[in-house]
Amino acid sequence: MRQALKQAQKAFDQEEVPVGCVIICDGKVIARAYNKTEQKDTQCAHAELLALQKAGKKIGNWRLLDCWLYVTLEPCAMCMHAIRLHRLVGVVYGADSPLFGYQLDNKAFDSLYKYDTLEVISGVLQKESGNILKQFFKKRR
Amino acid sequence: MRQALKQAQKAFDQEEVPVGCVIICDGKVIARAYNKTEQKDTQCAHAELLALQKAGKKIGNWRLLDCWLYVTLEPCAMCMHAIRLHRLVGVVYGADSPLFGYQLDNKAFDSLYKYDTLEVISGVLQKESGNILKQFFKKRR
Repeated sequence: MRQALKQAQKAFDQEEVPVGCVIICDGKVIARAYNKTEQKDTQCAHAELLALQKAGKKIGNWRLLDCWLYVTLEPCAMCMHAIRLHRLVGVVYGADSPLFGYQLDNKAFDSLYKYDTLEVISGVLQKESGNILKQFFKKRR
Repeated sequence: MRQALKQAQKAFDQEEVPVGCVIICDGKVIARAYNKTEQKDTQCAHAELLALQKAGKKIGNWRLLDCWLYVTLEPCAMCMHAIRLHRLVGVVYGADSPLFGYQLDNKAFDSLYKYDTLEVISGVLQKESGNILKQFFKKRR
């Protein structure tokens, strides 16, 4: 998560909402990415989607079967669906996202994926992950 | 939708699940794309996500406020969330996707987005859109 935070700092420095992400496979970081929504003019540039693309390229397969995704902010529903589609083992995230987080959509996730076993761990480096976001939005106001 | 079907044919020719997509803004096609999941090694290469990225690049803004997305197959939940995030006017799709379509997730969409007004029109060139998929899966078995 420290490495994901480093990625978030890069987003911050580029005036993007500071969210960072890494994907780990067999104890190694295989992808790093940060949010580039504004510079790429697309919501498809959320940190998670960029990291998933990089990881698939690295492995040569879209099935990220032995991987974990670490992200500083609770994923939105789009990203959480993407994580499920790529068949990762689990997700670890830092800060909660009460307005845009996938948990708004939690019941649907439960029913949609009742046979899969994605693990979700929240609150890791929560304070640091949240602080960089607060700092960003404070600066913008 | 005829143009989306042409895109689906390109996917078919490249041994990708044949789904095609175009985005229309003010009566003009501003983006065309087809599914490239296998060749790009990522589920982030669904036709819709690729088209959304191209459209944002074309317009210079991720907000696709006056745009409609046409796609030959009912979008999956990831893509439907992406369409919502990009603030399009509406979606038109061809064939239903009973196993992977966003409608599995419909209740969540209703509650998540109760204040937005995305229009969804289904069944346009449904037969043609479905036939190319059937043909593809028949060939693969």
